[in-house]
Amino acid sequence: MNRRMIFYTLGKMLEIEGILMVLPLLTGIIYHEMTAVYYLITAIICLGIGFLISYKKPKKRNIYAKEGFLICALAWILLSIFGALPLWMSQEIPHYIDALFEIVSGFTTTGSSILTEIETLSRCNLFWRSFSHWVGGMGILVFVVAFLPDVSGSTMHILKAEMPGPIVGKMVSKVKMNARLLYQIYAFLTVAEVILLVLGGLPFFDSLLNAFATAGTGGFAIKNASIAAYDSAYVDAVITVFMILFGVNFNLYYFVVIGKVSQLFRSEELRCYLTIIASAAIMITLNIAHLYSSVFEAFRYAIFMVGSIITTTGFVTADYGQWPMFSQIILILLMFIGACAGSTGGGMKVSRIMIYAKTCFSEFKRMIHPHSVVSVEFEGSHVSDSSIRNVFVYLAVYFFILFVSMLLISLNNFDFATTFSSVVTCMNNIGPGLNICGPVGNFSTFSNFSKIVLCFDMLAGRLELFPLLMLFSRNLWKK
Amino acid sequence: MNRRMIFYTLGKMLEIEGILMVLPLLTGIIYHEMTAVYYLITAIICLGIGFLISYKKPKKRNIYAKEGFLICALAWILLSIFGALPLWMSQEIPHYIDALFEIVSGFTTTGSSILTEIETLSRCNLFWRSFSHWVGGMGILVFVVAFLPDVSGSTMHILKAEMPGPIVGKMVSKVKMNARLLYQIYAFLTVAEVILLVLGGLPFFDSLLNAFATAGTGGFAIKNASIAAYDSAYVDAVITVFMILFGVNFNLYYFVVIGKVSQLFRSEELRCYLTIIASAAIMITLNIAHLYSSVFEAFRYAIFMVGSIITTTGFVTADYGQWPMFSQIILILLMFIGACAGSTGGGMKVSRIMIYAKTCFSEFKRMIHPHSVVSVEFEGSHVSDSSIRNVFVYLAVYFFILFVSMLLISLNNFDFATTFSSVVTCMNNIGPGLNICGPVGNFSTFSNFSKIVLCFDMLAGRLELFPLLMLFSRNLWKK
Repeated sequence: MNRRMIFYTLGKMLEIEGILMVLPLLTGIIYHEMTAVYYLITAIICLGIGFLISYKKPKKRNIYAKEGFLICALAWILLSIFGALPLWMSQEIPHYIDALFEIVSGFTTTGSSILTEIETLSRCNLFWRSFSHWVGGMGILVFVVAFLPDVSGSTMHILKAEMPGPIVGKMVSKVKMNARLLYQIYAFLTVAEVILLVLGGLPFFDSLLNAFATAGTGGFAIKNASIAAYDSAYVDAVITVFMILFGVNFNLYYFVVIGKVSQLFRSEELRCYLTIIASAAIMITLNIAHLYSSVFEAFRYAIFMVGSIITTTGFVTADYGQWPMFSQIILILLMFIGACAGSTGGGMKVSRIMIYAKTCFSEFKRMIHPHSVVSVEFEGSHVSDSSIRNVFVYLAVYFFILFVSMLLISLNNFDFATTFSSVVTCMNNIGPGLNICGPVGNFSTFSNFSKIVLCFDMLAGRLELFPLLMLFSRNLWKK
Repeated sequence: MNRRMIFYTLGKMLEIEGILMVLPLLTGIIYHEMTAVYYLITAIICLGIGFLISYKKPKKRNIYAKEGFLICALAWILLSIFGALPLWMSQEIPHYIDALFEIVSGFTTTGSSILTEIETLSRCNLFWRSFSHWVGGMGILVFVVAFLPDVSGSTMHILKAEMPGPIVGKMVSKVKMNARLLYQIYAFLTVAEVILLVLGGLPFFDSLLNAFATAGTGGFAIKNASIAAYDSAYVDAVITVFMILFGVNFNLYYFVVIGKVSQLFRSEELRCYLTIIASAAIMITLNIAHLYSSVFEAFRYAIFMVGSIITTTGFVTADYGQWPMFSQIILILLMFIGACAGSTGGGMKVSRIMIYAKTCFSEFKRMIHPHSVVSVEFEGSHVSDSSIRNVFVYLAVYFFILFVSMLLISLNNFDFATTFSSVVTCMNNIGPGLNICGPVGNFSTFSNFSKIVLCFDMLAGRLELFPLLMLFSRNLWKK
């Protein structure tokens, strides 16, 4: 175990968190808010501790899978523990557990909130909350690695643990895309959305924060009524399109940047993702048409909610709790599916679902013709047995965490739909669930114990289960 | 494709169904019920059609996996289609779809009912309903194969498709237990339960029918209030013990019969099964103690419901819908786990859950030490990669069917808990769910379309998903 390198990376991460806090600090200064001072204090704490633990440069820079998982899990936990400080110190969220829940929900791009009155928050806290989505969406470690002095091959172990999707590691290395370019594409799309929202008449502050939340597929709104507060078809349309764009594998944007647009059309995952969105939106539109004045209006709300849920953003323009159960179940299913691998979205990822389906079909063939040789192909290449095993183990672990969490959350004695959906929405990094934690509800009435369980679920979901679970494995700590 | 052999086996199966109908016919004669005549008519139809399609003995008796799946799926569908006739012809269940739902629920040992007034049924219909559990529990094809003139190696393909559990085929062949011995053990345990219930003061008719429903882990009661109607701690205790006994792998009883009692203690699955039962019962007891006059009373209801749900029987002695959500979630989790492989119970089976857990741990090891060789051991032997793949594919298919069914059931526009639990309870062959289809509810208000979907789910659950799904596979029908 290369302890020096672990401390070093975590220290650098804390320093970067400290630097990032300059942004809410500036926001506070611009709007003359006293709350800004807590960002100054926390920034100093982060920089101080970060400096102390990364003071000694490690001699050996080699790290292995083991350290990769450990760095990743610890980085996200530390990031959240320190990120919650200003929200709590400002007493705008009086309990630390609540502040922690809120910022974990931010960094993991979940968007579930314990706030009942969002609009009373100071602007610097609002900024930090939404900005955490932007930071967490692409991954803090991608950022750290981009600025580490040596981007050697072994940093792949860190990136692999942080980045979403079953085979992203391979794709990233294949296209030799580096972490900086990834952030450039991300920033470009975000700026484009800000401009379009400002053109639609939204104040700059609102446009910026909503764009942060869209880009990270987070879903923290700065209005109590979420995006419904603007009640503008144009704003809905812009955000719908950008949610869907941020749910696409970023490697495809890389191909676009280098001029290989044809790759877009070759991507099986993209086709499947868009097909799911289209069919879900059509089914919901037909199912809810009678609730709205026209089919077009129904479609406006349907496509927004479909885009919001499948990309795991979690913005809300309609109280889908009032929709027929058929539409609600479609949304629940989309929660499990999630966005594309290598995007900022959460959930199981479209590519995993496709690999499950393909493996099942190949197994059917094998069962009918026991001596035939059948292989699984995805995106034009053979999926190895070990990848398949990993993807299926993910499925088992996924439902294991889901069920255990449901059991722990049930201690609140809420109804079944709330118990079930609170875990589903947190684990898949979406935001709203059903009933108490539904589109017009929040997580304020959940017990502290539940909030900690859900924090774990959000982190587990964001880091694709394994890094966080590894913390409990004896193998990780054994020499 | 050996069509002759398929027709021959299906014909024999229908003849046996015809012969089995002599029992409700006799019941009707004993109790002077006119309804008996419909059993005579159906018996003649079954024998007639059975005779016609199995008239020509097949020259080639060899069949392969393909035919095994096909025979299994078609046999269960035919069994249900004809089995529903007397219920419907007697007009005690006026709609054929309802009668079909009821008898599919019977043969698959689910125990979900569309009846609102069970006690108004004639005795011969009550008998047939409960007897269907007994027939379905061990499997009709086990029975057919036991009486087929040649129990050759190729009939294993039929048994393998019908019998529950991931690796039962191997175990059955290992211990060379034949189908008749299996039925002898089954009958012995059933008779023992009947005697104990009669000793407890239950009428013989009630004892017999409740024993059928326990043995098949079915759960059809002959009272509206299920087993709660007897309000007897003795009856509860007897049924609890027998439910748990019928949830055990029958291969273990075989070992007991041949004097190898020590095998009982060596079975990992049995230990795990009993541990789950004990821990669930204790947790629920503590959780519901305040609702009852004493901890012992709470334990009586807790252990009964735990035994009833994990073995997928579905008898009810307490309205668990009134219990705290924590207890309800425990029961929901038990629904997924199910009984042991090679028992009459449904669900995923304890052994599958154990293989998932073991594979996950081995994968964790592999992820931390990528070059290490790790293997999965179960019941003292190595689990092959292809078995592991099959068990995981089962998991993916399981949740696929679950989610698609939920979507179709949601068209009823019932609440979420009903929508979710109706599918879970039918797919796992349990019986009661939550809310509308809860312990004091039934399936009468579900649409005809939903009933057909749930029939599919019950059959899929009973046949462990694959045989029924194969019917939709092009590979099965291709030459």
